[in-house]
Amino acid sequence: MTTSLQLISTATTNGVLEREFTLGDVHGMLWSPADVDQAPVVLLGHGGGRDSKAAPMVGRAQLLTAAGFHAVSIDAPGHGDRPCTARDERETVAMQHAMEVGEPVGPIVVPYNLHLAERAVPEWQATLDALEQLPGIAGPFGYFGLNMGTAIGIPLTAVDPRITAAVFGIFWYDETLAEHARRIKVPVEFALQWDDQHIPRQSGMALFDAFASTEKSLHANAGAHKDVPRFEADSMVRFFTRHLR
Amino acid sequence: MTTSLQLISTATTNGVLEREFTLGDVHGMLWSPADVDQAPVVLLGHGGGRDSKAAPMVGRAQLLTAAGFHAVSIDAPGHGDRPCTARDERETVAMQHAMEVGEPVGPIVVPYNLHLAERAVPEWQATLDALEQLPGIAGPFGYFGLNMGTAIGIPLTAVDPRITAAVFGIFWYDETLAEHARRIKVPVEFALQWDDQHIPRQSGMALFDAFASTEKSLHANAGAHKDVPRFEADSMVRFFTRHLR
Repeated sequence: MTTSLQLISTATTNGVLEREFTLGDVHGMLWSPADVDQAPVVLLGHGGGRDSKAAPMVGRAQLLTAAGFHAVSIDAPGHGDRPCTARDERETVAMQHAMEVGEPVGPIVVPYNLHLAERAVPEWQATLDALEQLPGIAGPFGYFGLNMGTAIGIPLTAVDPRITAAVFGIFWYDETLAEHARRIKVPVEFALQWDDQHIPRQSGMALFDAFASTEKSLHANAGAHKDVPRFEADSMVRFFTRHLR
Repeated sequence: MTTSLQLISTATTNGVLEREFTLGDVHGMLWSPADVDQAPVVLLGHGGGRDSKAAPMVGRAQLLTAAGFHAVSIDAPGHGDRPCTARDERETVAMQHAMEVGEPVGPIVVPYNLHLAERAVPEWQATLDALEQLPGIAGPFGYFGLNMGTAIGIPLTAVDPRITAAVFGIFWYDETLAEHARRIKVPVEFALQWDDQHIPRQSGMALFDAFASTEKSLHANAGAHKDVPRFEADSMVRFFTRHLR
């Protein structure tokens, strides 16, 4: 992987500078307030089956740039236009099958996402290295990611001291993941759906419990797996405003 | 009890109109944005051993008036300058003794606060009746109260349809209280301390679980009983802004 960002396209829309880039074979997006020199950066980790340009990333990037942050997202391995390995294809089929027949998806999603994290963490770290070469980007850095974005973000935050605040959630307890979480001491906000049909309440809460952070907040909202309320996006912006500004 | 507010004093400080009032033998405070005609109202229920003019109420009233709300607080029975019954005195001594010797306080606090709620709910309702006679106050109404403020606020919100959003927390599960909570369908935000030395995690979560509300959010923060983070006060203001404005 090369260590410098290659800009693919640049556009300014409604005061937001949007830069599409590649770093080696990793595709990503960098959103910046057009009128700001130095600003903290929030890394946006997308969910499974989505990519760096998916609507939830764009929406959160809009909120973050409006609050004076850079936001950056990269395609996870096997996502977006990136090539799929045989395992990627196998796991996707298994997941879809489990969904269709109503079997638990956790036993498939958890190990697969942890496998993806092993591939994604060095990519995020290389992206941070490259971002720091850009003018106006010197940190501090925060990380946001739910679902697969949590499976990748927890080991990333555990290993990279540049990330000083993180928002996670909507993921299962797993002993390997909890081991990473126990090494995280930065402030954490963690979302959980109280009526999640895939993730048992106790499982999400056990993962939240694992963080060593002295400041950590669990936001458990009524509703099903995909019904995380929109006001949690505002809460995320305020969380990073408290910790990165 | 008379049905009209008697104003004791009026002052305007930093754009906030502060009115001290009595309603029968109940003493209270009404804070209003000085430059606003009609505004929603947030009832502030204070904690045990405090009163309507305690610092946490004044601080929250400042945040609420700055966001364009009226805020009102009344002294609970046996609190502030109000007379204590023999039971009030007995329970206070028992509670202090339990604290000193390190025995659980829940078995004393819960039944006593539910007893206070029986006395306080009609007082809050009379206060609402009287407030509605004042110019600029026509609802909607929200309720905020932690600790004893929750023990009083849950039965109040269950019985008074004028209250259309509520913030509770830092209280034990109790079957009588849960019965009231099961009748509440308005949006609820509920605070819980993850490391509460008095209230077991599962107890607070069971109380949160009891609300029938389709929108309800549990905010569980790391820290001990009294360490509810300041940012929860901001969250409360945003919650009422979403639901009352």
